Amino acid sequence: MDGKRVIGVDLGGTKILAGVVDHDGHVAQRREHPTPTGSQDELLAGLDAAIEELLEDEIAAIGFGLPSPIDQKAGRALQAVNIPLDESVDFRGRMRERFGLPVGIENDANAAAYGEFRFGAARDVESMVMLTLGTGCGGGAVIDGKLFRGWAEFGHMVIVHDGIPCQGTCTGHGHLEPYVTGVAATKLAHAEFGPAVDAHRLVRLAAEGEPRAVEILEGIGRHLGSGIGTLVNIFNPELVVIGGGFAAAGDFVLDPAREVLRREALAQAGDRIPIVRAELGTAAGLIGAGLVAFDAVE
Amino acid sequence: MDGKRVIGVDLGGTKILAGVVDHDGHVAQRREHPTPTGSQDELLAGLDAAIEELLEDEIAAIGFGLPSPIDQKAGRALQAVNIPLDESVDFRGRMRERFGLPVGIENDANAAAYGEFRFGAARDVESMVMLTLGTGCGGGAVIDGKLFRGWAEFGHMVIVHDGIPCQGTCTGHGHLEPYVTGVAATKLAHAEFGPAVDAHRLVRLAAEGEPRAVEILEGIGRHLGSGIGTLVNIFNPELVVIGGGFAAAGDFVLDPAREVLRREALAQAGDRIPIVRAELGTAAGLIGAGLVAFDAVE
Repeated sequence: MDGKRVIGVDLGGTKILAGVVDHDGHVAQRREHPTPTGSQDELLAGLDAAIEELLEDEIAAIGFGLPSPIDQKAGRALQAVNIPLDESVDFRGRMRERFGLPVGIENDANAAAYGEFRFGAARDVESMVMLTLGTGCGGGAVIDGKLFRGWAEFGHMVIVHDGIPCQGTCTGHGHLEPYVTGVAATKLAHAEFGPAVDAHRLVRLAAEGEPRAVEILEGIGRHLGSGIGTLVNIFNPELVVIGGGFAAAGDFVLDPAREVLRREALAQAGDRIPIVRAELGTAAGLIGAGLVAFDAVE
Repeated sequence: MDGKRVIGVDLGGTKILAGVVDHDGHVAQRREHPTPTGSQDELLAGLDAAIEELLEDEIAAIGFGLPSPIDQKAGRALQAVNIPLDESVDFRGRMRERFGLPVGIENDANAAAYGEFRFGAARDVESMVMLTLGTGCGGGAVIDGKLFRGWAEFGHMVIVHDGIPCQGTCTGHGHLEPYVTGVAATKLAHAEFGPAVDAHRLVRLAAEGEPRAVEILEGIGRHLGSGIGTLVNIFNPELVVIGGGFAAAGDFVLDPAREVLRREALAQAGDRIPIVRAELGTAAGLIGAGLVAFDAVE
């Protein structure tokens, strides 16, 4: 299988990111297309087209990162919210049949964690957890070198019993997601500074020393620290990686998270487990989807 | 290895429970000794004696359930609280050397989950999580037939950000443990009904229809539901098992937990994942320690 390459596809609610990935995590022919969300048929046709454009003889497999929980046994996406993909579709089987290649599917945030583990911020450890802070909050974990194959929907850990309603169609209350995303930051920024201040501008204000901006980011970071505390006490990782667009808030959010983690983690784990920023940027999911493809070959 | 048997040891803060365990989970020569907590030397001597009393030619391995997080790589107990066992002791190595047999160690609640998975309430599923509600709150998970080897310290998930202080030496706030144990129930019962009403009596009062007793147990159950929600969204188990002495509260606690789980779990998982009571009682940890011993042979 050496020398072989795979196609990785990171399917998001707005973009299909596809590329050819090799064993070293290098991406060739990176392509971005808007996600057709009009209907399931259009979505599948869009995926087919994105793959066909990259197919060549030496492609050994195809891997997908999908924005939903995954039923690995059945090879299906469960309750996808941002894309029109029904649970009744045998997604993995369909793709296998259509392209005659091994196909792996994973949750998109799991795939991104896998990418960071092999080629990014966590390349030197054996066990890690990752949280992705963007529009939503996703996550993934690698334990002893293996991608954790539960749901790993870390954005939907309950960190405030009976807390604020979750985002989108999630019926949960007090999940991590509505406390720590860029969307959450923008909401708080609007309330404090008016409608022209979004998450990005909030971080800028904090950098300029605006005390309420610093305080808002600190509150977000402290909630993040509770979520990381739960993850550390469950997974005992060597490293915690924070990715996604809102990771740009950096230490304004991560320092308070570190402080709360020290309090919440058992066995002084908070003192020895670093919280660091992701390194692969928007390519993490694509590279991870490629790794999922390589795993499907083996 | 067929026909061989192992020694399982469930080490608790008050009792050493030891026995000979066979491949079918049957326990022979079950023995209980008080845990010597005066010093580490006394504790280790007590464990040695409990094992020596059971040693026979056909014993293939020894497995321990220890009341602390475990460093599996180093074979050590981390930050044990209820027993005088230091992190510097190479526990697994010492036992291997002393008895000349393969030795496995696990967290006691992980071991209990393993026991329930193979021979108890979860014997018909492939993936499960278990929470043990007793003096403290422990837990364990089995995924696709394999014991989850993170810390799985489910009692120390944060379910109330900045909530009430955790028990014992844990510095955490709003962990699941102080909301859902028998100790927590006793505390609430004292406050409501006076010092003669403990958790056991509280459940009795609820059974007699006392509305405040029902309400207190409901509050405990709802917090438990938040914790289970986190576990379901991370592990996607087929079944949730509740063990430990306080599981005797039964549906007074489990029905509200089920209700909250339906709200918190993604993909309607709360509708299809049953929450059931454990079946092996106090033997779960001992049987699980035996399974850990069998795993150490393989």
